[in-house]
Amino acid sequence: MDPNISALRQKLADAGQSHLLQFWNELSPEEQAELTQELEGMDFQEINGFFKNAMQTSNSSKQGKMDCRMEPVPREVLGSVTRDRESVKDWELTGLQCISKNKVAVLLLAGGQGTRLGVSYPKGMYDVGLPSHKTLFQIQAERILKLQQLAEQTHKTKCCIPWYIMTSGRTMESTKDFFSKHNYFGLDKNSVVFFQQGMLPAMDYNSKIILESKGKLSMAPDGNGGLYRALGNQGILDDMERRGIESIHVYCVDNILVKVADPAFVGFCVQKGADCGAKVVEKTNPTEAVGVVCRVDGRYQVVEYSEITLATAEKRDADGRLMFNAGNVANHFFSFSFLRDIVQKYEPQLQHHVAQKKIPYVDAQGQLIKPEKPNGIKMEKFVFDIFQFAKQFVVYEVLREDEFSPLKNADTQDGKDTPTTARHALMSLHHRWVLNAGGHFIDENGRRVPAIPRDGAAGSVTDDGKRNLKDGTDLPIKCEISPLVSYGGEGLEELVKGKEFQPTLTIDKEGVHQLVKNGV
Amino acid sequence: MDPNISALRQKLADAGQSHLLQFWNELSPEEQAELTQELEGMDFQEINGFFKNAMQTSNSSKQGKMDCRMEPVPREVLGSVTRDRESVKDWELTGLQCISKNKVAVLLLAGGQGTRLGVSYPKGMYDVGLPSHKTLFQIQAERILKLQQLAEQTHKTKCCIPWYIMTSGRTMESTKDFFSKHNYFGLDKNSVVFFQQGMLPAMDYNSKIILESKGKLSMAPDGNGGLYRALGNQGILDDMERRGIESIHVYCVDNILVKVADPAFVGFCVQKGADCGAKVVEKTNPTEAVGVVCRVDGRYQVVEYSEITLATAEKRDADGRLMFNAGNVANHFFSFSFLRDIVQKYEPQLQHHVAQKKIPYVDAQGQLIKPEKPNGIKMEKFVFDIFQFAKQFVVYEVLREDEFSPLKNADTQDGKDTPTTARHALMSLHHRWVLNAGGHFIDENGRRVPAIPRDGAAGSVTDDGKRNLKDGTDLPIKCEISPLVSYGGEGLEELVKGKEFQPTLTIDKEGVHQLVKNGV
Repeated sequence: MDPNISALRQKLADAGQSHLLQFWNELSPEEQAELTQELEGMDFQEINGFFKNAMQTSNSSKQGKMDCRMEPVPREVLGSVTRDRESVKDWELTGLQCISKNKVAVLLLAGGQGTRLGVSYPKGMYDVGLPSHKTLFQIQAERILKLQQLAEQTHKTKCCIPWYIMTSGRTMESTKDFFSKHNYFGLDKNSVVFFQQGMLPAMDYNSKIILESKGKLSMAPDGNGGLYRALGNQGILDDMERRGIESIHVYCVDNILVKVADPAFVGFCVQKGADCGAKVVEKTNPTEAVGVVCRVDGRYQVVEYSEITLATAEKRDADGRLMFNAGNVANHFFSFSFLRDIVQKYEPQLQHHVAQKKIPYVDAQGQLIKPEKPNGIKMEKFVFDIFQFAKQFVVYEVLREDEFSPLKNADTQDGKDTPTTARHALMSLHHRWVLNAGGHFIDENGRRVPAIPRDGAAGSVTDDGKRNLKDGTDLPIKCEISPLVSYGGEGLEELVKGKEFQPTLTIDKEGVHQLVKNGV
Repeated sequence: MDPNISALRQKLADAGQSHLLQFWNELSPEEQAELTQELEGMDFQEINGFFKNAMQTSNSSKQGKMDCRMEPVPREVLGSVTRDRESVKDWELTGLQCISKNKVAVLLLAGGQGTRLGVSYPKGMYDVGLPSHKTLFQIQAERILKLQQLAEQTHKTKCCIPWYIMTSGRTMESTKDFFSKHNYFGLDKNSVVFFQQGMLPAMDYNSKIILESKGKLSMAPDGNGGLYRALGNQGILDDMERRGIESIHVYCVDNILVKVADPAFVGFCVQKGADCGAKVVEKTNPTEAVGVVCRVDGRYQVVEYSEITLATAEKRDADGRLMFNAGNVANHFFSFSFLRDIVQKYEPQLQHHVAQKKIPYVDAQGQLIKPEKPNGIKMEKFVFDIFQFAKQFVVYEVLREDEFSPLKNADTQDGKDTPTTARHALMSLHHRWVLNAGGHFIDENGRRVPAIPRDGAAGSVTDDGKRNLKDGTDLPIKCEISPLVSYGGEGLEELVKGKEFQPTLTIDKEGVHQLVKNGV
C-alpha cells in the first residue's frame, strides 16, 4: 500500500477522523487522488481545536445573561448625519483629503454565493434590473472611480483607491473572470486585488468531519471574519503597507446603496482618531432582526438579535428612542495599524461561531441523506468579532433609506431584500437627488408628480382620505443616475434645475435621457 | 306628459343637468321610475355649489405654498407612550373611569368597500386568516366587550360603550345582516347603532353629473368626512346626548390592531381638556406616503403627503427626528360638545376635496366608455377636515408595531397592508405579550426560540454573520390571544408565566391551546 496513504491514515487516526477514508476502496483513482490532496492540505488538530472551542463558547454564551451586561453606545463616540449635520461637510473634506493622499483603501466582502438569491454565481454579478442593467460590482466600481475624480478635483492631484476583494473558493474564478471581461470597469487593474477566504469542514456533533459524498468532504467558507486570516496569509496586509494605506473601509457586496469609501465616514473616524468604526442605521422596531452595536462588559461588540431578550430590545431612552438602536449593517472602518494588530496578534484568539445546519451527508452504507433536523455545525468567524480589541471605537449613524438596502432573497420570496426592493431603493434615492437639485417629474398627462407619490397612482387621493403608512422605497418614479455623474447627489443642479422630466429618467456621462413608457 | 317629469325637467334645466334625461325614452317604465325617484331626492343647486367650491379650493391649494406655512406639533400638546411612559398608566385609569360612567362611545368608519382588497363585501367582514378566523368586526366587538369588563372590574359598576357604525349605501344592509347573524358578537344589540353616510354624484370637469348607464347616475360615498352630516341628519348626535356621551373615539375599520376606545388615549385627552385629539405614529422615512398632523397658519390640520415638498418632508429637529413626523392613522378623539358644534355650526363651511378619477360613463350615443385618463371628479370630505375648529387640540403618539396595521390590498399585490401583513402584525403583538408575561416559545426540536426569531429559520445564524434589517411584523411565531382574554396584554401572567409553548399557540376564554404543525 502507498506509504502516503498509511501516513495519512495515521494522521487521521490521531485526529479521530479515520471515517473520512471509509469508502476509500470504492473510489476511482482520480477520486482517491483528489481526496488525498484535500486531506493532506488540512490541519486536523487545528480543526478539532476550533470545534472544541466553538462548541464551548456557543454553549457558555447561551447561559451568560447578556441583558444585564449590555450598555448602549455613549453619545460622545457617536457621529450622526441627522444629529450632527453641521459637521458632516467637514468630515467629508477630511475624508477626501485622505483619499487624495492615497491613504484610503476599500475592502469588499464578496465570498458568499447568491444561494438565497437563487443564482449560482457571485452576488456582485447580479443585475437587479435597473434601466442601465448595471451589476452590483459595476455600481461599486464606478463609485470608486467617481470618488477618485472628486478627490482629484478638490486637491489637484492624481489619486487611487485600491480595491481589495475577498472571494471564496467558490467565487474566486468567476469573480476574476467577470472583472477582466469588463476591463475592471475602468479602474486600474493593478489596484483591484483579489484574495480568497479560507474554507472549513462541516462537522457533526461528535466532532466528526462530514462527508458530502464518498470521496468529498462537506466544506464551507469560514465566515466573513475569515477576512483577517486571509489578509495575513495572502500578503494583502503587506500590499496595503507598500501602498501606504492608513484607512480601510470594509463592506458587504450585497448593499446596493453602499457609499464605497464614504469620505464623510472615513473623515469622521480619522478626526476622532478611531482605530475602528462601525456605520449603523437606527433600529426603530424592537423586533427588527438586526444585530446592535453596543458595549458588553465595557467592550464594544455586535449583539445578535437572537441573543437579546424582548425586554432589553424594548428598552427606551428618555427621548423615546430604543436604547439599543445602533443597527449593524456590516460597514466598517479600520485604521491600518489596528488591522495589522488584529491579523498579527488578536485573530487567533477569536472563537468560531457555531451555525447549526441541516447538512447532507453519506451514511455508513454510503447513502446520501438530507436530514430533516440540524445534524451538524458550520464554523464561522464574523467580521465584527474584532470590535472588542479597539482602543478608540466610534459609531457613525446614517439614514437607512439613503445607505442601506441589501440584496438577499429572490423576488419570489417574502418581498424583503429582493432585487425589486434594491432597485426601488436606488431609484428612490436618485429621485430624491433630482428633486433636491431642483428638478421635477411629470406624469403621462403632463401633471407634476408630488414629491411623495402614492404607491401605484401618483398624487391621487385615496378612497377614504386616510393615509397609508408604507415604506417609501418603492416609489413608481423610475430614475437612475450613473455613479460616474454623481457619487452622493452632488453636481446635478446644472443638469436638472428647473427642468421637468417624465420617467424613466436616466443620467449618465453622455447626458440626460428620458425613456417614456419604459417598464421596470 | 307626466307633470312630475316636466317639473323634474325644469329642475334639471335650472341646474344645467338636463343631460341626465337624454336617454329617457329608451328606458323601461321601471328604469324611468327609479331614475325619477333618485333625481327627485337630489338637491342639484347644492351639488353644483359643492362642485364650484371644491374645484376652487383644489386649484387654489395647489398654488398656496404649504411649506412655509407649516409648523410642527409643539411638545406641550403631545402625549407619547414612549416619551411620557410614567403617565400612561394614569391616563389609562382616567379613561377607564370615564368608560365606567358610560361617558365614552366609539364611532367606526366603515363606509368603504373592500374594492382594493378584491372583495365586494364590507372590509369589516374580512377574515385575514388568523387561527380563530375572526373577522375585523368580531375582533373590534370583543375588544369593546373586554374593555367594558375591565372598567366594571375596576369600578364595580355595570357599564356600556355604545358602538356607532357608519356604513354607506353600498354596505348598510350586508353590515347589519352580518351583525344580527352573529348576534352582535355578544354586545347589547341596542348599543350597536348603524347609520349611513351620504352619496354624491361623480361629475365631469364641466360640472355635468356623469351617467354610468342610460338610466343611472354615477354615485359614490361623500368621503369619511360625510360622518358629520350623517351624525346630524340621522339623529346620531341626539342618541349620544340621550346616553350622556362625553367622549367619542373615532377610527377606521381596516386597522387590525386598533385599540377601540383606548382608555389611555381617551384619558390623556380628557386630562388635557381636549375637544379634539389625533392618535399618530412616528413617520421615520421622509418619503412615507402618510399625511402628517401639524399646524398651518396656526391651525391644526393633516397635510397630505402629496402637498409637501421633499425639502419640507426631510426637515429634521436637532434630535435628528423628522420635524413633521406625526403620521395620521385616522384614529381620533372628539368631545361631545365639539362634535355637536361641528355638526351644527362648522360642517357646512367645509369644502369637498377633489379626487380626479377615471369614471366609466355613457357617451351621447349611449355607449359605455372606460376612460384611459381621469375624466371627472368625486367629491369627498375627510374626517380630519374639522381639526381646524378645535380650541384645545392634542396629539397622542403611539407605536406603529403595537397599534397600526391597516388592511388595504389583496395578497396578490405589492405585499403592503395585505391580509398577510395584518395577520402577522397581530400575531407578532400577541407573541410579544406572551414573552413579556414570562412565557417562552420552543421550536419543533424543543429548543427555545429567540425573542426575535429570524425570518424563516428561528435563531439560526445567517450565512454571512451579517444581520438583515427587516420589518419585525412578519415573525413566523404563530400566536393569537382572544380580546376576551386580554385587551392590551394584561392578565396573561397566570396563563403563561414560566411555561413553554410550541406554535400555534391560541389563548381564548376556554383556555390555552397548542395546535402543533398548523400552517398559517
